[in-house]
Amino acid sequence: MTYCVAMCLDEGIVCLSDSRTNAGVDHINTFRKMTLFERPGDRVVVLMGAGNLAITQAVVNLLREHASVQDHESVWSAATMFECARMVGDTVRKVYQRDAGPLKEFGVDFNASFILCGQIESEPPRLFQIYAAGNFIEASEDTPYFQIGESKYGKPIIDRVVTSATSLDEAAKCALISMDSTIRSNLSVGLPLDLLIYRRNELKVARHVSIDWDNHYFDMVHKQLGASLRRVFSALPDPDWANWAQGHAVQRVPLPGQAAKGG
Amino acid sequence: MTYCVAMCLDEGIVCLSDSRTNAGVDHINTFRKMTLFERPGDRVVVLMGAGNLAITQAVVNLLREHASVQDHESVWSAATMFECARMVGDTVRKVYQRDAGPLKEFGVDFNASFILCGQIESEPPRLFQIYAAGNFIEASEDTPYFQIGESKYGKPIIDRVVTSATSLDEAAKCALISMDSTIRSNLSVGLPLDLLIYRRNELKVARHVSIDWDNHYFDMVHKQLGASLRRVFSALPDPDWANWAQGHAVQRVPLPGQAAKGG
Repeated sequence: MTYCVAMCLDEGIVCLSDSRTNAGVDHINTFRKMTLFERPGDRVVVLMGAGNLAITQAVVNLLREHASVQDHESVWSAATMFECARMVGDTVRKVYQRDAGPLKEFGVDFNASFILCGQIESEPPRLFQIYAAGNFIEASEDTPYFQIGESKYGKPIIDRVVTSATSLDEAAKCALISMDSTIRSNLSVGLPLDLLIYRRNELKVARHVSIDWDNHYFDMVHKQLGASLRRVFSALPDPDWANWAQGHAVQRVPLPGQAAKGG
Repeated sequence: MTYCVAMCLDEGIVCLSDSRTNAGVDHINTFRKMTLFERPGDRVVVLMGAGNLAITQAVVNLLREHASVQDHESVWSAATMFECARMVGDTVRKVYQRDAGPLKEFGVDFNASFILCGQIESEPPRLFQIYAAGNFIEASEDTPYFQIGESKYGKPIIDRVVTSATSLDEAAKCALISMDSTIRSNLSVGLPLDLLIYRRNELKVARHVSIDWDNHYFDMVHKQLGASLRRVFSALPDPDWANWAQGHAVQRVPLPGQAAKGG
């Protein structure tokens, strides 16, 4: 699997992706999931994909091919992020038309999803999630982040911490914590990570770093977070059973010959 | 959905289940997921189910029916927890034979899983997870817990805290924290909760409590945990970008006419 997250905040955008792919548990490889379209002063567009690697690679390759041809309709020519999202959606549908039938014959679902984010010219930064059907949704101030892939392990910390007002550095920290929780609980997500930070209205990438186990900060987050969480856990008092309502609603199965009762 | 977790520890067993069921998001109901077979001095057997409610209820009802007949083969007559697990597995298969075909015609998967745990006579306490196919696995000292339903949100905290040596009170606390993270991130899991604690070799339920929002302890966990996690988050330093490796592996799409390059 994969885990990718992007947050679209007042200050800009934070994107983080892992690089683990697997077909079963014994065919594990490293593939980058993040693709960057950058023309400084004009646009920064980031695409991350999760799901069947053959599908996500086909989508990225088609988008790259179009982008390599002068004057072809492509991410370079799109006037808005919405137009980019439609382009990605259309490309997913093209791959679907070609591959979904043969995949189905092998019992393989057409499984792919994408996060697309960035800023084009004077538009504000925008963030989209694109589904396998080619349809998509856009993030809002209320829900300023999207996740794809193995998203559940790392969702609670984001829900507790991130709002539109969160700073880029704090958002990057939160994304790394979210990734750390995911990696710890799920073998199929792994280092190295790609972290990209975009600052609103700069129209160029502010920071792009590659994170492996030799990254001291991620290593510190990994260790200190574990220790801190165990301390938080210990500091919470154990249950004070004295004042608790006795349970009564459990379905208690009567012994043969006894009347059934609720409690 | 549902979230249920059980931990089989040196001191005994902790089980926790929610009571939210939903068919879509607009048909949400409260159903208890925990069924208890208790004959003090002889056995305590707890069954929790997740998945399609019609399936899990059918399984529980068949087990109850057998258990209500004197001398019928049932949870009351099983000599071991392994025999109980086989009985539950066989019952799931019976329901499958009856219901899977008609469900399939409506595009509904046969989706159900169970946690079975408890102690029978002189056997040690045991914990099983039973799949929709009727097969099952048993917990071990290395993996002393099982989760069913919406398990991912609440897994990281258990992975960080629980070992076989964890006390029953601490395990109950951890289960409640795990549930709190799940409820916060997923609408389809909700109160009231059933919490059951079994102390090794007592052959009777040590504690069974029903937890609703008026439970002061759960309310405290909910609030204090959120505040503590935000404090832990703030206490972790922001990324110290100075020493970070510049990313190079992102797939950067070249502008038309430029040569493709890796970095």
